[in-house]
Amino acid sequence: MTSSSETTPVTAAILVIGDEILSGRTKDKNIGYIAEYLTNIGIDLREVRVVPDIQEEIVQALNALRARFTYVFTTGGIGPTHDDITADSVAAAFGVSIDHDPRAIAMLSERFPPDQLNEARLRMARIPAGADLIANSVSKAPGFNIGNVYVMAGVPSIMQAMLDVVAPTLRTGVKMLSDTVRAGLREGDIGTALAEVAKAHPEVSIGSYPFFSEAGPDTNIVVRSRDPERLAAAITAVQAMIDSERARLAV
Amino acid sequence: MTSSSETTPVTAAILVIGDEILSGRTKDKNIGYIAEYLTNIGIDLREVRVVPDIQEEIVQALNALRARFTYVFTTGGIGPTHDDITADSVAAAFGVSIDHDPRAIAMLSERFPPDQLNEARLRMARIPAGADLIANSVSKAPGFNIGNVYVMAGVPSIMQAMLDVVAPTLRTGVKMLSDTVRAGLREGDIGTALAEVAKAHPEVSIGSYPFFSEAGPDTNIVVRSRDPERLAAAITAVQAMIDSERARLAV
Repeated sequence: MTSSSETTPVTAAILVIGDEILSGRTKDKNIGYIAEYLTNIGIDLREVRVVPDIQEEIVQALNALRARFTYVFTTGGIGPTHDDITADSVAAAFGVSIDHDPRAIAMLSERFPPDQLNEARLRMARIPAGADLIANSVSKAPGFNIGNVYVMAGVPSIMQAMLDVVAPTLRTGVKMLSDTVRAGLREGDIGTALAEVAKAHPEVSIGSYPFFSEAGPDTNIVVRSRDPERLAAAITAVQAMIDSERARLAV
Repeated sequence: MTSSSETTPVTAAILVIGDEILSGRTKDKNIGYIAEYLTNIGIDLREVRVVPDIQEEIVQALNALRARFTYVFTTGGIGPTHDDITADSVAAAFGVSIDHDPRAIAMLSERFPPDQLNEARLRMARIPAGADLIANSVSKAPGFNIGNVYVMAGVPSIMQAMLDVVAPTLRTGVKMLSDTVRAGLREGDIGTALAEVAKAHPEVSIGSYPFFSEAGPDTNIVVRSRDPERLAAAITAVQAMIDSERARLAV
């Protein structure tokens, strides 16, 4: 477990583009999906941003994120209407030109006969120079990849289909492993002792998540590590701490 | 409709703090709730960021957001365990000291007898110097307000209770109004004509949101404005455009 991929994790950010998320009209379903997906393939999601349909905002956020993380995944703003400005914004962020891409037109032609491939739909074939297309099995309008940025649809079913296409091409790290211990105690009952366990196991990540069950307030302790032995050792220590606290509190 | 609050909208950002959101283990329910809430009281949500439980990341994001927007709302990281570092990070961002706050201890004492007010729970009374407390009717552990930043819990029921306390104290703008026309047409069928409507009504925001119904692909056109007359004029124009396109396409 001392591979280079462990010491240099593969990182990612998500950039959600869309006024409808910020107004609350549409509730985002993509962040949680992509987060879980990336965790499962050994990529660490490190930041998420949601920005409006304003080119300057998109460019600024994208350039900040792509400089810091291995990959950036964007969702939203690649449809056929005037408020879909993601492709143009990505081209501006990379300083490249953008035009109708013959490969994208060919993809759209699989779905739309010539009389339906109007100006609006051709907007979906505007792809920044140098980008590779991401096939879209649902509606044919492609996403694209330029540099370390993957531009995907905002509609969840389409985004998910695109992510399945993209994932096998990504560099991935050693998968983050996790295990959970349900404490049967309130978070505040175990916080002090848990801090000591965390201090004694600095190489793992220990999170504490309170929740309510029918029996009352309870806490899940989640230990995360890329090293199964370290994970097991920390879980044993957490379990011992909980047993001790339960005995002390006589529950 | 030419009040100063229209020309200088009240803006906001959300900063979600928590490894569990980035790992996908917990699916955020706060962004959409706060977004809709702020829209309803006339505050424009302009950006959202999700960052991990790392002080440097929290400080950097918070300082970027509080400099740009009227208000910043944070969620998460104010519990009793070692991974709850929001209060310390906010103090660092503002360059102020942090210590156990007698007012916060008094609030916690309403819920916890002295023998339960242990080191972990007292962690929830650590409040940056100069902050005002935000009462928490659910679990008593308070949030706080410092400068233009409102620090709230991550647990949705608690966050919602805190937002109800905070909202009446906020400066609000003229409420954003919106109206929706269901097109009964695919987004790509109306994109070209919709762009012309948008161009003719530059003072309103027109969004196009495709969805699938039992009858097939459809589109909602959402017009947003603070001015009811401009909103009505744009909605009329959108409806006329849709009638015309439906006639042209003979649907």
